[in-house]
Amino acid sequence: MERFLKGIDASPGVAIGKVFLYKEVELYIDKGEAENIEVEKERLIEGREKTKTQLLGIREKTAQKLGEDKAAIFDGHITLLEDEDLFDEVVELIEDENIKAENALDQGISGYCDMLANLEDEYLRERAADLKDIAKRWLYNISGIEVVDLSTLPKDSIVVARDLTPSDTAQLDLENVVAFVTDIGGKTAHSSIMARSLEIPAVVGTGNITEILKGGEEIIVDALTGDIVINPTEEEKDIYRAKRQGYIDEKELLKQLKDKEAVSKDGTVVGTWGNIGSPKDVTGVLKNGANGIGLYRTEFLFMAKDRFPSEDEQFEAYKAVVESMAPHPVTIRTMDIGGDKSLPYMELPHEENPFLGWRALRICLDRTEILKTQFRALLRASAFGYVKIMLPMVISIEECRKARILLEECKEELRDEGVKFDENVQLGIMVETPAVAFRAKYFAKEVDFFSIGTNDLTQYTLAVDRGNERISKLYDTYNPGVLAAIKAAIDGAHQGGISISMCGEFAGDDRATALLFGMGLDAFSMSAISVPRVKKNIMNLDKVDAVGLVDRVMEMATSEEVLAEIDKFNKEYLGK
Amino acid sequence: MERFLKGIDASPGVAIGKVFLYKEVELYIDKGEAENIEVEKERLIEGREKTKTQLLGIREKTAQKLGEDKAAIFDGHITLLEDEDLFDEVVELIEDENIKAENALDQGISGYCDMLANLEDEYLRERAADLKDIAKRWLYNISGIEVVDLSTLPKDSIVVARDLTPSDTAQLDLENVVAFVTDIGGKTAHSSIMARSLEIPAVVGTGNITEILKGGEEIIVDALTGDIVINPTEEEKDIYRAKRQGYIDEKELLKQLKDKEAVSKDGTVVGTWGNIGSPKDVTGVLKNGANGIGLYRTEFLFMAKDRFPSEDEQFEAYKAVVESMAPHPVTIRTMDIGGDKSLPYMELPHEENPFLGWRALRICLDRTEILKTQFRALLRASAFGYVKIMLPMVISIEECRKARILLEECKEELRDEGVKFDENVQLGIMVETPAVAFRAKYFAKEVDFFSIGTNDLTQYTLAVDRGNERISKLYDTYNPGVLAAIKAAIDGAHQGGISISMCGEFAGDDRATALLFGMGLDAFSMSAISVPRVKKNIMNLDKVDAVGLVDRVMEMATSEEVLAEIDKFNKEYLGK
Repeated sequence: MERFLKGIDASPGVAIGKVFLYKEVELYIDKGEAENIEVEKERLIEGREKTKTQLLGIREKTAQKLGEDKAAIFDGHITLLEDEDLFDEVVELIEDENIKAENALDQGISGYCDMLANLEDEYLRERAADLKDIAKRWLYNISGIEVVDLSTLPKDSIVVARDLTPSDTAQLDLENVVAFVTDIGGKTAHSSIMARSLEIPAVVGTGNITEILKGGEEIIVDALTGDIVINPTEEEKDIYRAKRQGYIDEKELLKQLKDKEAVSKDGTVVGTWGNIGSPKDVTGVLKNGANGIGLYRTEFLFMAKDRFPSEDEQFEAYKAVVESMAPHPVTIRTMDIGGDKSLPYMELPHEENPFLGWRALRICLDRTEILKTQFRALLRASAFGYVKIMLPMVISIEECRKARILLEECKEELRDEGVKFDENVQLGIMVETPAVAFRAKYFAKEVDFFSIGTNDLTQYTLAVDRGNERISKLYDTYNPGVLAAIKAAIDGAHQGGISISMCGEFAGDDRATALLFGMGLDAFSMSAISVPRVKKNIMNLDKVDAVGLVDRVMEMATSEEVLAEIDKFNKEYLGK
Repeated sequence: MERFLKGIDASPGVAIGKVFLYKEVELYIDKGEAENIEVEKERLIEGREKTKTQLLGIREKTAQKLGEDKAAIFDGHITLLEDEDLFDEVVELIEDENIKAENALDQGISGYCDMLANLEDEYLRERAADLKDIAKRWLYNISGIEVVDLSTLPKDSIVVARDLTPSDTAQLDLENVVAFVTDIGGKTAHSSIMARSLEIPAVVGTGNITEILKGGEEIIVDALTGDIVINPTEEEKDIYRAKRQGYIDEKELLKQLKDKEAVSKDGTVVGTWGNIGSPKDVTGVLKNGANGIGLYRTEFLFMAKDRFPSEDEQFEAYKAVVESMAPHPVTIRTMDIGGDKSLPYMELPHEENPFLGWRALRICLDRTEILKTQFRALLRASAFGYVKIMLPMVISIEECRKARILLEECKEELRDEGVKFDENVQLGIMVETPAVAFRAKYFAKEVDFFSIGTNDLTQYTLAVDRGNERISKLYDTYNPGVLAAIKAAIDGAHQGGISISMCGEFAGDDRATALLFGMGLDAFSMSAISVPRVKKNIMNLDKVDAVGLVDRVMEMATSEEVLAEIDKFNKEYLGK
């Protein structure tokens, strides 16, 4: 037997334990005639009652473990269970066709699910999946098959199943179940999402682990990498115990960091901010202890509808974010459409090279009504917190000046209308074209702040489309040319007396923290989950060491040499 | 009547004169029976003799005016005229069908032309056009119609015709004919090419000038712009006389410069080189006094056939150029396929952004056999003159090192085979990505020379596809970001101790000469026709003034300010 399996790391952690193989009993539906119609109706009702009792139990456990929030899922399940239309239909089937309760329920549910699955409303369509989940339980209860109780497993159990439903996952006894592994599923499946909320390690999508294992084996689940080790040796167990401990220690440390500011050993204060795409992402940003938003991508607001969002719609979205984050800064990027992002309702021309085409600010300065509507919404939102307005795809100072004039026009209009806004609202730009990096000092005199967009800056500096697989090995932000562009942007910002952040993916790469800190980056903006790790790095750094690293790296010829030097530094100063 | 017409400026110059309207007489072919077959044969022979005498006369005039080289065209015409097969066929037609000489000749020529037109051989196919030209003359001579003599026109004549054949053009009396204008034709038509050799102003493709004019009118032909003015006022004539004089003076000056080196007033020697696409372009380069080739685009060699060119085919092409230019340098760029240039026989993948894709050196380093074949051909050619090998689309020092290793392998192979080559052949790179401009000093330590490719460098620095019309106003090499990239490349080259040229279109823009000279560019490589103008600029410059211009320009915010400063400087120091 192969001792090593690979799956998808759905919920982080490391566990060692004994396999509990959770296989569903094949359900047999008796298609014969009913002997007594009244008995069948009674069986139907009893099954429903038993199911309700179980669901209420699961609901209560969920409320204790995960809060009322997640428990509410099961209120929905119970409502569906008690649906009178469904019940009447099943009773009718028993009476009219003289069949048994389980047969009638199975047919009734099928019809109901088909009907739901065909509805326009997405919410109702998704209820079909819930209905199947509770119907299975109801059928088991009518047939007298015991539903496996996942809440009473022995200590250090690892549940191995073809798949887990949300109700399965909610029942898991967190005292005794240390991980779960499934054949199917992905990172965004409901059970994966719940696993992350429960903080239980999970590896999904292994393919066929339920066929390989019999139950009772000892296994290691490394849900940091997706690796499974079956019947591990003592040596292997020691290695993974150490890994588990390291993970737990780090998690603990990151929890402690949550409410702390990122201050380096020498006392340099650095912003650790989050990138978001919509107001609902703010929760994650706050949970991870970010003290600002360095990039709010407004294009999702533009892509969500079949028309441009109105000034009021935009205002509501911006206000929601700004209020939730106040007094922290919220950097909102104006429409960044074009390139690889299109709008269904706006006809963009076909372009041979869309990344070098009519996009973002270029569209906005040709169609100023789009930009002015957005500026007005942003200004209005600025009355409710700390708004920074950011322009993408700048290549010239003329563009900055044109945008500034439009912004002043909008301010004038709002003043005339008596609408409040922040008179000192900042206007900044993305540094994502080499044109700006080469002349950063001069742009810094024209605008209020910079934010480096490393994705596009890398792409243009290297002339490499990051989506082109054939040359993906050439897309490399550690290429010394790109690092020089980043350094030029930071130096230019400071020469011009403004602050500079970074909101490209590179900001969340904790391998790069020391280098960027050494270059003098004022704020790192990244995916919320990366915030604690980067924060921890900064708190372990001393400016003088990091500057030394930068000096050495900038004299190196290749990204291979650069990475070796960085890794050496990180090992010495960050312990990894 | 409209007094202003616009055509294509086919051969430069300005002229004022009287219209000689050159209309062909409609030829009438008598399709009746021959009265006497022997008489018809006699007419055929007499017409041929007369034609031969005329062609010999034209040949002699051409030899005097344009040299034996161009006169040889008419040897070919005479050979065709005396073709025995053609003659026998026409005689046979007279005898068999009992028709007149002109009818038989007309039919015979048609058949012969059709036959030639269907041949595979391109050279023979083109002879059909020559044959039609001489057949017309022969038919005129048989019919006793006088062929208009373009060699005896009154002083200051301007010939206006539907079209001119090469033999028409060769006959033009250069003492008295000051320009010609036609309805049809383009810049590359034979008559246009001849007009440029004869240095006679010509505007072609006016559409219908022969229908507008009656002959005898006074007109102005501005063949610098393609403008025609009919019946000009005295004021208009004064303006154009001044323009003509200015053009003549400048042409005279440029002739004087041809064999001079470009040395500035302070004694700085600058290379003025030509860009070429094939060996036949060398003539133009030498004629314009270029002292080197800064860019030989080898991709035309790759695009000409339905397969990759062999090592020997490449060698022959490179050797031809290198020998013609020796001892001057010839910079040969390795295959630059991809982006907007495809090869019919090589399947390139569809790419979303081909300018950011798998192209040029990227293809060559993935398919090293292509590069090694080219390197071998280049090394072999290096034995015959001064070869510099240039790599396009470099973004990393790793790429330079990989190419160097392949070049050394090829050298080793040739040594083993006992083939001669220049052991010190230079390996250089294009500076056309921001990645290299940002780190020029470091690249300069790895390679032997740089050449700035401004077209791509502008495109990547500004993230603007130069072929995209919607954003064409953003494609601007005077954008301070692009100028900073150019300056960084030049500074880096000199810090690294190597020389740097420029082979993009910007090098031939004489508005930019002073700025580039001030930055320290070592050589300008451009279209051959731009060489004298740039050379003249350099000879009028003093380094210290040009450096002052650079210092002022590099502090400017917008390209508008930059251009105003440059224009002010050029007016003061270059008189324009």
